[in-house]
Amino acid sequence: MAVLRKDPVSSRWVIINVDNPKKPEDFEKEEHVFKKGPCPFCYGNEFMTPPEIDAFRHEGTYANTPGWLVRTVSNKFPALQIEGDLERRGEGIYDMSNGIGAHEIIIDTPYHDKTITDLTDEEATSVINMYCRRSIDLQKDKRFRYIIIFKNHGAVAGASLEHSHSQLIALPMIPKNVLEELAGSRKYFEYRGRCIFCDIAKQEIQEKERVLIETKHFVSFCPFVSRFPFEVHILPKEHSCHFHEIKEKEMFELAKILKETLLRLKIALSDHSYNFIIHTSPFDRESHDYYHWHIEIMPRLTRVAGFEWGTGFYLVATPPETAIKYLREAKI
Amino acid sequence: MAVLRKDPVSSRWVIINVDNPKKPEDFEKEEHVFKKGPCPFCYGNEFMTPPEIDAFRHEGTYANTPGWLVRTVSNKFPALQIEGDLERRGEGIYDMSNGIGAHEIIIDTPYHDKTITDLTDEEATSVINMYCRRSIDLQKDKRFRYIIIFKNHGAVAGASLEHSHSQLIALPMIPKNVLEELAGSRKYFEYRGRCIFCDIAKQEIQEKERVLIETKHFVSFCPFVSRFPFEVHILPKEHSCHFHEIKEKEMFELAKILKETLLRLKIALSDHSYNFIIHTSPFDRESHDYYHWHIEIMPRLTRVAGFEWGTGFYLVATPPETAIKYLREAKI
Repeated sequence: MAVLRKDPVSSRWVIINVDNPKKPEDFEKEEHVFKKGPCPFCYGNEFMTPPEIDAFRHEGTYANTPGWLVRTVSNKFPALQIEGDLERRGEGIYDMSNGIGAHEIIIDTPYHDKTITDLTDEEATSVINMYCRRSIDLQKDKRFRYIIIFKNHGAVAGASLEHSHSQLIALPMIPKNVLEELAGSRKYFEYRGRCIFCDIAKQEIQEKERVLIETKHFVSFCPFVSRFPFEVHILPKEHSCHFHEIKEKEMFELAKILKETLLRLKIALSDHSYNFIIHTSPFDRESHDYYHWHIEIMPRLTRVAGFEWGTGFYLVATPPETAIKYLREAKI
Repeated sequence: MAVLRKDPVSSRWVIINVDNPKKPEDFEKEEHVFKKGPCPFCYGNEFMTPPEIDAFRHEGTYANTPGWLVRTVSNKFPALQIEGDLERRGEGIYDMSNGIGAHEIIIDTPYHDKTITDLTDEEATSVINMYCRRSIDLQKDKRFRYIIIFKNHGAVAGASLEHSHSQLIALPMIPKNVLEELAGSRKYFEYRGRCIFCDIAKQEIQEKERVLIETKHFVSFCPFVSRFPFEVHILPKEHSCHFHEIKEKEMFELAKILKETLLRLKIALSDHSYNFIIHTSPFDRESHDYYHWHIEIMPRLTRVAGFEWGTGFYLVATPPETAIKYLREAKI
């Protein structure tokens, strides 16, 4: 019989198939099909993107020319527009706003055929460092209340360009999913006086059953209440609500654990598509005690269908306790 | 510049691309690829499914043999299991339950190559009628608190078999998304003393801009706060919280408006995959005044990616005001 588990933060139930867990080879792999043509993110093609916002560069090289390691540009087709004042209005029973925000692309590497897992530890650290720098810079803009950083890897995960890149979107409001996570973790804090994510990390590290990698400051594990098969979360072990407050020496450690986690997923799942999302606090200090930033990695092995859309329940074809075995055994 | 709109029920924001609305032909169509082999839902193959639970049959024909119009069977690979007592327990900070529930398949038609849109009005009415009958029957089971009825059409929408069928899942708890809709509509009711869905229907009918079909008892429209391009909702015009309380004479009208809506979507979007979900109240009477059952139809034209997963925001490539034009012009 399936087992139902409830996420203590979001109150979401998942249905875990423990009787016939799906193995990695049971998931149909869709090819990553991308449009052909010159790649705007490649070394030497800097003129093809909107102007550079920020970059780590070799000394003596100029913006919008080669010589960079990680490069941030505006999205050519932004979901939201940076120029203008925020204007809110109503229409009958509806609330509306104009589309103010920032939508940036962080090009992880100048090389078309490299992904995060192919970078050196130092190169991967520069990507993490760029995430932080852009977060800190955009927080100065008083119109914004939240910044989300994420990666879509592979066409099935929503990537439209093959060249490895991450995205950053700054929003004029705190999004619904974040409000929900904040509310769930505040409730727990009010009741128990502790951060729920600290408790989750403690329980996972103690039980060991679902832990993939543990380092001095971080732990990566298949969460007890996974929504997707082979989902992995990375949590800082010490309480911290804002991703951008990560110390410089910890960036290197985070880059390493992220790289190894993604590499194990890549090998176990034959380079399947995935999304990862950095979950962090809004800029204000209110959630300081009860929220805890973390990274959620979601391989896109199954399709979300009517049941999931209608209920918010998730059908999980591989229990995290099974997934972890494959990830541990992956020969890296 | 994009426009942000907020759903008054769920408080979810969507980002609507009003500058370069995507046309139907701009969405990449994925083929519906299904496994080959004998179809368990076809006429004459009744022995291939689990035993029949219910069916509309010609007089004198027997269960699990031909002679049926609509046929309900247990799902051969159920997400939840019907036998057993509900058992809840905790594990550290987590709540768990065993996987008790009902998972039924409603085979819409005996013919492999027909979908809802190919059925006669009477045949389609029988499908609606079966949805109701199964709902009413399963509510007698005291272990269940919610029933969801939905359809996955096409492989991209999560269908694993080609033959037209719907699904029903009875759950031992009220799912998160339903709780959210209930909370949102209750809040509105407490503030205004009116049902929010009644107000939405009234505003849409009055403005006419997004209305696709209006009949005596129903209205179908592209919602002002669509989450997906070409999304369509069907609402009963009179307040009613429980789908299964639909009057028999209204079933025929609902079948007709559902058929025409799906047919217009099929033509405008070249038979793209879609999900539809019947949103209805839990069995209790508590939500009587403030909740309003309805059907949400979601064409699966775009991929949900990191931004949507992380925030709950949706990027809508075609404004509902544009989508409605294509649906109205579809030559049926």
